[in-house]
Amino acid sequence: MNAEELFRNIQRKKSFLCVGLDTDYKKIPKILLHKEYPVFEFNRRIIDATQGYAVAYKPNLAFYEMLGAAGYMSLEMTVNYLRESYPDQFIIADAKRGDIGNTSNMYAQAFFKTLDFDAITLSPYMGRDSISPFLEVEGKWVILLALTSNEGSRDFQQLQTAEGKQLFEQVISTSAPWGNVNNIMYVVGATKAEALAGIRKLIPEHFLLVPGIGTQGGSLQEVAGHGMNDRCGLLVNASRSIIYADVSDRFEDAARKEASMLQKQMEEILLERNLIVA
Amino acid sequence: MNAEELFRNIQRKKSFLCVGLDTDYKKIPKILLHKEYPVFEFNRRIIDATQGYAVAYKPNLAFYEMLGAAGYMSLEMTVNYLRESYPDQFIIADAKRGDIGNTSNMYAQAFFKTLDFDAITLSPYMGRDSISPFLEVEGKWVILLALTSNEGSRDFQQLQTAEGKQLFEQVISTSAPWGNVNNIMYVVGATKAEALAGIRKLIPEHFLLVPGIGTQGGSLQEVAGHGMNDRCGLLVNASRSIIYADVSDRFEDAARKEASMLQKQMEEILLERNLIVA
Repeated sequence: MNAEELFRNIQRKKSFLCVGLDTDYKKIPKILLHKEYPVFEFNRRIIDATQGYAVAYKPNLAFYEMLGAAGYMSLEMTVNYLRESYPDQFIIADAKRGDIGNTSNMYAQAFFKTLDFDAITLSPYMGRDSISPFLEVEGKWVILLALTSNEGSRDFQQLQTAEGKQLFEQVISTSAPWGNVNNIMYVVGATKAEALAGIRKLIPEHFLLVPGIGTQGGSLQEVAGHGMNDRCGLLVNASRSIIYADVSDRFEDAARKEASMLQKQMEEILLERNLIVA
Repeated sequence: MNAEELFRNIQRKKSFLCVGLDTDYKKIPKILLHKEYPVFEFNRRIIDATQGYAVAYKPNLAFYEMLGAAGYMSLEMTVNYLRESYPDQFIIADAKRGDIGNTSNMYAQAFFKTLDFDAITLSPYMGRDSISPFLEVEGKWVILLALTSNEGSRDFQQLQTAEGKQLFEQVISTSAPWGNVNNIMYVVGATKAEALAGIRKLIPEHFLLVPGIGTQGGSLQEVAGHGMNDRCGLLVNASRSIIYADVSDRFEDAARKEASMLQKQMEEILLERNLIVA
């Protein structure tokens, strides 16, 4: 999927919502625990309930790895289910990998071939040759960490460099030419909405993946105000606020309601910006 | 295992060798391919052949993840085999993870509980709250990326900060107080031996994990000259030069010979430094 196709999906769905599948085994409704793959079963039902309001799904690898091989199976089944049932959804591996070229090649195979993800989140710390192997896979995307939503983003990402920039700005400027607007996005936390305006000046056309709405406290209005461009340019992620909106056996209705509410807000924003017609 | 126990293992084995299990399915001798878990079978034989010369093993997660659930099984079997057969070996997950606190908690469970690793490599980019959940697990270690062996280390790790340091130096100074010499090590590539002296001034007592010997071209003598302290303070990793020393069915002998050669060089260095007696 390229940037234009993603934008068309956003227009058609009137939504730039990404649903984070941070599926914690301990929080799954008890009625699902007798299934062979409860995590997949939960994901499948969340996906069915929310897919009309979302353009992307983002499984968070940690939650699957903690379950060992069974977790891996649930992940694979989730990706395959999305690919087969809802082929226009953009599927992101929230993996935050990054290693020397030889190893990054293996990760690219793991996430783009063994599993059929559209995109993977990566950490920039190891530099260009840790990122390039992913960019070389046709039609797939790198989503590079720039300015994250957590408190620890102050420790290094916001360090001043000798050039008078903050590290995350230098990460963006240095890495953007490694790829293009059809294969690199950046992670910018919703809790850092005021930084989005500056980031938009550096990369007016790139898509940004924005986590931190909902449980982490970021504001959708502020994110859109500072970060949107004339092709939307945003995927806004909500995880816990949707998938754990209700942890009883009515979880599907609650997730649908939460996703629908966010989609309505997004529709209004897209209308205001003339990116869709009423 | 704490730093003192690790040093005693180094003295007893007369070695500070870590064997990297970057086991590429495509490079495994054909005679193993009929086994149910060829990657585990290869690892088991490499471990049996080299364990007398090594104090640590480091499976590289990418190589297991690219095989999906079967790769995960091989990884789990490898960790369990080491734990049961050679309980004094220090087992490192070369995973280079790092995420917000909630997610890092899950990764800590994945690598320290679901799997019984002693240590995990992490990327510092997301800051303190992405690292702390690992440090909170009693008896386990974080190995933080500082200055890596690849060309891309120039892109960000060696950036000058406004304080007149390089980013990797600031990563070390900032993060060292988050833990102590019994739960934090740093990755410094063998190809950056000249930087080791400066790093030793910042953290005289911490262990360093040094990859890049062998295939990547780093020199053991230079690494020891600049990086060793009075409790050794080094784990030097070799991966491909040992495990693929010979890719025929004589791979075990070749791996043993290569590990033994490195161990002999390490023994001489430890003797010169009076860290062991002849």
